[in-house]
Amino acid sequence: MRRTLFTEDHEAFRELARDFIEKEVVPAYPQWEKAGRMPREAFAKLGATGMMGMAIPEQYGGGGQPDYRYNVVLQEEAARALVTLSTVRTQLEVILPYFLHYANEEQRQRWFPGLAAGTLLTAVAMTEPGTGSDLAGVRTTARLDGDHYVLNGAKTFITGGMQADLVIVVARTSTDPDNRRRGLTLLVVEDGMAGFERGRELEKMGCKVQDTAELSFTDVRVPVTNRLGEEGEAFSYLGHNLAQERLTVAVGSVAQARSAILAAIDYTKTRKAFGTPVASFQNTKFELAACSTEVEAAQAMLDQAVAEHVTGELSGADAARVKLFCTEMQARVVDRCLQLFGGYGYMMEYPIARLYTDARVARIYAGTSEVMKVIIAKSLGL
Amino acid sequence: MRRTLFTEDHEAFRELARDFIEKEVVPAYPQWEKAGRMPREAFAKLGATGMMGMAIPEQYGGGGQPDYRYNVVLQEEAARALVTLSTVRTQLEVILPYFLHYANEEQRQRWFPGLAAGTLLTAVAMTEPGTGSDLAGVRTTARLDGDHYVLNGAKTFITGGMQADLVIVVARTSTDPDNRRRGLTLLVVEDGMAGFERGRELEKMGCKVQDTAELSFTDVRVPVTNRLGEEGEAFSYLGHNLAQERLTVAVGSVAQARSAILAAIDYTKTRKAFGTPVASFQNTKFELAACSTEVEAAQAMLDQAVAEHVTGELSGADAARVKLFCTEMQARVVDRCLQLFGGYGYMMEYPIARLYTDARVARIYAGTSEVMKVIIAKSLGL
Amino acid sequence: MRRTLFTEDHEAFRELARDFIEKEVVPAYPQWEKAGRMPREAFAKLGATGMMGMAIPEQYGGGGQPDYRYNVVLQEEAARALVTLSTVRTQLEVILPYFLHYANEEQRQRWFPGLAAGTLLTAVAMTEPGTGSDLAGVRTTARLDGDHYVLNGAKTFITGGMQADLVIVVARTSTDPDNRRRGLTLLVVEDGMAGFERGRELEKMGCKVQDTAELSFTDVRVPVTNRLGEEGEAFSYLGHNLAQERLTVAVGSVAQARSAILAAIDYTKTRKAFGTPVASFQNTKFELAACSTEVEAAQAMLDQAVAEHVTGELSGADAARVKLFCTEMQARVVDRCLQLFGGYGYMMEYPIARLYTDARVARIYAGTSEVMKVIIAKSLGL
Amino acid sequence: MRRTLFTEDHEAFRELARDFIEKEVVPAYPQWEKAGRMPREAFAKLGATGMMGMAIPEQYGGGGQPDYRYNVVLQEEAARALVTLSTVRTQLEVILPYFLHYANEEQRQRWFPGLAAGTLLTAVAMTEPGTGSDLAGVRTTARLDGDHYVLNGAKTFITGGMQADLVIVVARTSTDPDNRRRGLTLLVVEDGMAGFERGRELEKMGCKVQDTAELSFTDVRVPVTNRLGEEGEAFSYLGHNLAQERLTVAVGSVAQARSAILAAIDYTKTRKAFGTPVASFQNTKFELAACSTEVEAAQAMLDQAVAEHVTGELSGADAARVKLFCTEMQARVVDRCLQLFGGYGYMMEYPIARLYTDARVARIYAGTSEVMKVIIAKSLGL
Repeated sequence: MRRTLFTEDHEAFRELARDFIEKEVVPAYPQWEKAGRMPREAFAKLGATGMMGMAIPEQYGGGGQPDYRYNVVLQEEAARALVTLSTVRTQLEVILPYFLHYANEEQRQRWFPGLAAGTLLTAVAMTEPGTGSDLAGVRTTARLDGDHYVLNGAKTFITGGMQADLVIVVARTSTDPDNRRRGLTLLVVEDGMAGFERGRELEKMGCKVQDTAELSFTDVRVPVTNRLGEEGEAFSYLGHNLAQERLTVAVGSVAQARSAILAAIDYTKTRKAFGTPVASFQNTKFELAACSTEVEAAQAMLDQAVAEHVTGELSGADAARVKLFCTEMQARVVDRCLQLFGGYGYMMEYPIARLYTDARVARIYAGTSEVMKVIIAKSLGL
Repeated sequence: MRRTLFTEDHEAFRELARDFIEKEVVPAYPQWEKAGRMPREAFAKLGATGMMGMAIPEQYGGGGQPDYRYNVVLQEEAARALVTLSTVRTQLEVILPYFLHYANEEQRQRWFPGLAAGTLLTAVAMTEPGTGSDLAGVRTTARLDGDHYVLNGAKTFITGGMQADLVIVVARTSTDPDNRRRGLTLLVVEDGMAGFERGRELEKMGCKVQDTAELSFTDVRVPVTNRLGEEGEAFSYLGHNLAQERLTVAVGSVAQARSAILAAIDYTKTRKAFGTPVASFQNTKFELAACSTEVEAAQAMLDQAVAEHVTGELSGADAARVKLFCTEMQARVVDRCLQLFGGYGYMMEYPIARLYTDARVARIYAGTSEVMKVIIAKSLGL
Repeated sequence: MRRTLFTEDHEAFRELARDFIEKEVVPAYPQWEKAGRMPREAFAKLGATGMMGMAIPEQYGGGGQPDYRYNVVLQEEAARALVTLSTVRTQLEVILPYFLHYANEEQRQRWFPGLAAGTLLTAVAMTEPGTGSDLAGVRTTARLDGDHYVLNGAKTFITGGMQADLVIVVARTSTDPDNRRRGLTLLVVEDGMAGFERGRELEKMGCKVQDTAELSFTDVRVPVTNRLGEEGEAFSYLGHNLAQERLTVAVGSVAQARSAILAAIDYTKTRKAFGTPVASFQNTKFELAACSTEVEAAQAMLDQAVAEHVTGELSGADAARVKLFCTEMQARVVDRCLQLFGGYGYMMEYPIARLYTDARVARIYAGTSEVMKVIIAKSLGL
Repeated sequence: MRRTLFTEDHEAFRELARDFIEKEVVPAYPQWEKAGRMPREAFAKLGATGMMGMAIPEQYGGGGQPDYRYNVVLQEEAARALVTLSTVRTQLEVILPYFLHYANEEQRQRWFPGLAAGTLLTAVAMTEPGTGSDLAGVRTTARLDGDHYVLNGAKTFITGGMQADLVIVVARTSTDPDNRRRGLTLLVVEDGMAGFERGRELEKMGCKVQDTAELSFTDVRVPVTNRLGEEGEAFSYLGHNLAQERLTVAVGSVAQARSAILAAIDYTKTRKAFGTPVASFQNTKFELAACSTEVEAAQAMLDQAVAEHVTGELSGADAARVKLFCTEMQARVVDRCLQLFGGYGYMMEYPIARLYTDARVARIYAGTSEVMKVIIAKSLGL
């Protein structure tokens, strides 16, 4: 169906992104997969094009275009080329907003140029072993000692944790027995600070070009000047960006499901079974028609949500609906497309296999489908 | 989610429709269900409000507002009140377009005032016993004899056929062995013409306020002046309106699915099981959250399609996608909502039971889900 | 797949049942549907063949064969002929067990001959308006007054309630604040007892040859000799028969799903679409293959459960699994088969439409799918 | 539910298998996964217990128990320990039957002792690049030249191909234009024969303890004494074992789905979310209840099929039904169980992640779900 989301500026950016991905990402991607991450140089190259800093104000070296649709375009173009720029996505859509909203002027001057240039890599450390997504249960502590916080604790499932120069750590600075949500603070831990250690890298089912790490903090002295925002207010900061975090997952889900269909159409047209192209079987046609229908429904819902997000009108419940629908749709569609590849669909050299293993996390991270349902049910008065 | 489809004029019309439905439809609906149809007086009353003739030019007594969104509003308001105005819908969205597009000036003067007033009821007779939706296989014939056509044949599944004053009959006026699609013509048969008989009324699973008839034509002499459009060109006429016919089914599906959710929320909040409101069970919350998500996805897709239809840009394949998605969604959602009613869901006095039996036809009429998939697959180059 | 459940005796009984159904049920069925019940004479005719009393001891006029598999055969043969003998099923599989297990010698002599002859019709009245299946919440009371109980209360959803000569009523004879399950008693109310009134008949979506009634009891004096079993023990009696009640629903579900497939195969082989038999489309083949696969899985599970039930080894959790699986399977299969009929599937003259509306209750009665899940989860230690 | 498939002998074998797996397989499994295969020594150890040769006649060093149920037990015990012995399974259930049925006396003496001892590893090479499962399209040729065949061609997707000492190669020895199925012959290629080369190892999504290889044959001189069975008859040989091949996939699917449920029960009982064990949420209970129900249905169907297979009565269509149902069930169940693990489900250190990636191939190999449907539809007369 027709899309009305993008302006000419976005389409120009799309050309730029497509070109970069074709030249700089696609050829290197197999090595990145083996290495388990995108190399630092690649971030810097992307930064040099301006794509890392679109949302950062111009005075700090950015593009001054805090328009979420550029992120959409970037994800769509990656999916179109059958790759994912997961760490970039995390940096731009999940982490950068914390810096943009809560950094003070001194911090902006210190960090924004590097963020825009793609030379400062970041991570955000919320989840702890054993507490899952229950932020109120955070047990990492930060005790104020003069002009430093003394940070102790462990974090897990940290996307990009192995490479990050700056890690935003959620720590408890005080305890309010009446309100577990009070007392959380964001501290920016820097690479090289004494007591900050990176543990083992977790082996994931998919999302191979993205490290997932365990981090530990033992008496790390973090200067107060590295605190992001106010002390004790992190809970609301974290909630504030959740809608975008969920939207960004949905954007990837729809774009990748669409790619899966295109890949399956290509494959079934050339592949023969029993002397006939697989695409000529009615089952193939019906499966792809059903998949295409689901993707278009998801796209319509998503584009509307993005439009609302751009104007600041997207509700948390609707963001949850969009994430739920788009990720569940992706799972169904990618699975059905893979099936049309037969045995080749199980071989990692075919991108459809990677789309499949990548997809499985979408229903889990940034809030599971079950958490989405909890949020939606509340909005229905249930 | 936010909807951007309607203007203030549509919302004013919505008030009008809501008011009419509450006062004139809801109280009488149980009798209409027993009678198997909406009475002629009710059409006339609706006509008197102007709602039957919105799309008809003002000089013939209509509202001069050929804007499809008024039809959407009317269906939504009916669904909101847990009724359906199926025959009205058929008249306005499926049949009226043939008159609007193909009636000549004399016919306009003859028929439009009655159509606008709701005093001329109509039907369209395409399907024949044994040929189904294969228009090219029509066996009803019309032989030109002076200034009349002599019509012979039988039709079935004719919505509104028992009450219609005017029946648009698809008949074969010539046979082109090279092109089975050529040679079909639309003739308007009038109530009372000799040889036009209404057979038995078919008993349907649901859609009880709407008769479905078998009609037969034996040497019916139809004046040439009752021919709609050109001789032999009916195939393309029929194809031309298909997108709207499918869209209208989707509009009903989404509106009714939404109503099913609201009914289930109301019911589960008051109904207790084992001492606890059913709405407080996590399963109830998750089911309704999932249903709400599906409805919002469908609504987004549908609203976009309606917007495209209003500007004449909706492709046939996208109309097929929208019908496929919205009707399949309706089936899933209404079934899940009914389940939450327990034994009451099986009792026809609960509207959810009617929503369920009504819903089953949506995946079948105006082209089955399978036909939709054929159309969509073609658009994918398969 | 091969079935090993039945012996030659069962197969002989099958011939008898098939013959009876073809001659006595199928021709009369349309009238029964209109009447909303099977007439008394038909029960008596069935009784005369011995099929109503298979499980009743010979000295009381029965067949002396308390083998559940005869019930299975009877249901299968009804489904094979595309009819259902719902009230017979309720009498034999749900109600008769209470008489067989709890009637004393005097009651046996009084009632068993009529039950075996099909001249005494029965119902069981558990559910009350507002309490649903929560037996512990029963509010109908029976106060002992000399050698009578004085019964007061209202019941709803009573299968066969309009015709029943004997109604087993669940009433509260005492209240134990520590154990809501204590104090329930079974009383047999007879047609004609003063104060026993039958209210309106509930209109159901399907299951048309079976009335569903509301009953009320106002100071009905029920002789103590009409008490079934011990006072206060009804809760355990009712629980005792639940496994069989659920099994019997599953038996019907599998048999009817199988019939739906056969009907769809027949239909699609003769029906043409666009000049080709519908059965020749790959989609038709795949849909029917998938349906057949589901039915065979359900049949295997069910036959194993029946075999366990016959030897008294079937657990309540496994009965719940079988009901859950078989009824959900029926819903999927009948829906898919109906779709293959196109518009005809929506017409009540096609048995597939009746199979569809009948099927919807199977996931609800005798414990909803949700209640089954509660039971199963408990058995998993959850 | 109760299972009646096994005798005391099978249960004794089960103890043996369980013990071996716990001691020899589970501790080494992580290394095997990294190595991408089970080492030769492990096969020999398994052989030493007698488990590799159960079906081989005693005079050649086997157990003389050609009872398929031992294979079932072995797979079940592997799944129970959350490992898979894929290559063993392939050797015992897919390849060994060819040797057992078609080896002549000389070949038996030559090969059976090594097969029983687990020192001779095998593979079967059917699929070719570009032809898929279409055996009639085999292009590898074997030309008779004196007492040798000269073999040329390429094969792909060869399970165990990297390690195999003996590879049964399907080759075309003659061409019958009227019957593409004629002219195929089985030749046993031995490790070290000149011109036999192993190409690259294919990287699969899962099934990591099992290599999948490309093999090529360039003028390989295979002695006529290495021909298995008659020249030109391989097509029927290959078809003959298909039912067992499909059954064996179903056995694994059911056993692994069952393990996934047990793993999820364990996990959700200990894991807390928002302060409550995940197992205490109704959604968790309902999901696991639904999964358990599906597994029991599949198990009942499978056990019946195995019983029929043991007596030689299992039809090809029923084997197809069993494979279709059990593998589709596995996909649904493992996916739902994984979801209950949240983020941990995506980490390869949790066996549920391996169960998930392993499961995806089950709907594909040994005939895709679509091929199963083709077979089933034929058996329905479609």
